[in-house]
Order: sequence, then structure tokens, then C-alpha cells
Amino acid sequence: MSDLTIRPATRDDIPAIVAMLADDPLGAQRESPDDLAPYAEAHRRMANDPNQHLMVAARDDRVVGTLQLTIVPGLSRRGATRSIIEGVRIHSDERGSGLGTRFIEWAVDESRRQGCQLVQLTSDTSRTDAHRFYERLGFTASHVGFKLSI
Amino acid sequence: MSDLTIRPATRDDIPAIVAMLADDPLGAQRESPDDLAPYAEAHRRMANDPNQHLMVAARDDRVVGTLQLTIVPGLSRRGATRSIIEGVRIHSDERGSGLGTRFIEWAVDESRRQGCQLVQLTSDTSRTDAHRFYERLGFTASHVGFKLSI
Repeated sequence: MSDLTIRPATRDDIPAIVAMLADDPLGAQRESPDDLAPYAEAHRRMANDPNQHLMVAARDDRVVGTLQLTIVPGLSRRGATRSIIEGVRIHSDERGSGLGTRFIEWAVDESRRQGCQLVQLTSDTSRTDAHRFYERLGFTASHVGFKLSI
Repeated sequence: MSDLTIRPATRDDIPAIVAMLADDPLGAQRESPDDLAPYAEAHRRMANDPNQHLMVAARDDRVVGTLQLTIVPGLSRRGATRSIIEGVRIHSDERGSGLGTRFIEWAVDESRRQGCQLVQLTSDTSRTDAHRFYERLGFTASHVGFKLSI
């Protein structure tokens, strides 16, 4: 396969990112690929926040993956900084290609480079394949993730 | 009981916050109340980040609770902003007083005020009392929380 680039997402990447967010059993119900305005506004907010890293993986200039890395300073664990990975999506054409592994390893390396001592993420209880994937990469399923829609 | 104040943590609150972080079955192993320098440095980083809200609850000028609220813009869920609650601690003298409920309700209200559509948190699988507490407050245990120390 041709070379893969991992880089910050630009405004022009938004349609490809939203298409991946929507091409998912859970995302299909909650995304709106026909109305990109709220996504463009969110991209603007993220671009202004130095602790937000919305990334894409591109192959031959085609966006084939996305994830969001957030850097969170904190007091607990002796003032440890942690990172949070959210919104991981790999294009259906690329599943099984090793891109997911490479992308998460990139996020872990970047977290280390930014001085984090901990990387964390949550995954819907229904995504059992994803759970095995994260455990293979060394993550521990040590927590229960709670959500409240408001 | 006398009036409760919920306010941003100042540098002077650090010793009381660290004492609460350490007075915990998990925290006892990973905090250093005798060396506050890394906490002061982390407090400085948080104070410079407008999306970080390190809060204390005080009664009669005595710090009796702490939590960290992080505002996270994002692309998924139609550009939804979410908040993440971390590092919740209630002083042992105050457990059962309703302070935990009031503090989490404050965090949910503040998240709404800041335009969040989702509040999330993770809790160690061993903290079963905390899980019941969050479920009583309307949170759903819909996710598995993964962590990787780096």
C-alpha cells in the first residue's frame, strides 16, 4: 500500500471525516452528513484550542481515518497530564490494514511527546471488537464509562 | 449545616485538595502530599487553560470537596461539545451530607451553561458505591473505560 500521512485535519477534510463518523452502527443515528455547518463551527473551536488535536490519516491524499486527541492537565496522580482519545474512525476500505494500530500508536507517541503520563479512552460496551483491539495495544479496561445527555 | 460555596480552586487550596486526593484507597498509592511542587505546576497549567475548571467546595472557608471539569469541543454527534468530570473527591467528614450530589449537579449545570450536550466521566471498576451514585444522578454506564500508563 502507498504511504500514509497523519496530519491535523483542515476545514477541507470535514466532509470526509463526517462521512466516516456516519458510516458506523452508532454514528448513523446521530450524525448529519447533509448539514456540515455544525461540524465547521466545531472545527473552528478545536483549531483555536492548543490542547485539541483533530487528526486525519490520509493515503494518496484521500482521508481514510480520523481521531481526536485532547491533552488534559490535572492535579491527581502527582499533577499528571493525561490525554483522551475520542472519535476514532477508520474508513471501511482500510479495516484490517493495520491503520488503526498505527494511528493509536501515533496518538500514544504524541501523548508521550506532550508530557502525558496516561492515555485514556472510552468505548461503547457494544463495540467488543474495539475492546479486544485496545487490549492488544496494551490498554487496560479498568474503568466504567458513564455518560449523561443534557 | 452552614453554607456551601463552589468556586475555582486557588493556589492556596492545593494542600487541602492533595490531602483529599491522597485520602482514598487508590489515591493513597499515587499521590505525594509531602511534595506539592508538581501539583503547583499542574495548577498553573490548568489556570492558563480556559477549558479547564478545577473547582473546590468550601464550607466555612474549609475545603471539603474538589472536582475537575474539562470542556471538550468535538466533531462527532453533530459537532457536540462534551464535558469530562475527573478527580472527584469529597472530604471524609462530609460523606453522606449530600455534597457529592450537589457538586455533580453543579458540574452538570455548568456544562449546560457552557453549551455542552453530553457530560461524561469514568470511575474505577472497584468503586461500586460511586457507580450507584452516578446512576442515581441519571448517568448511564454505557462505556468501558480504557487506560494506558506511559
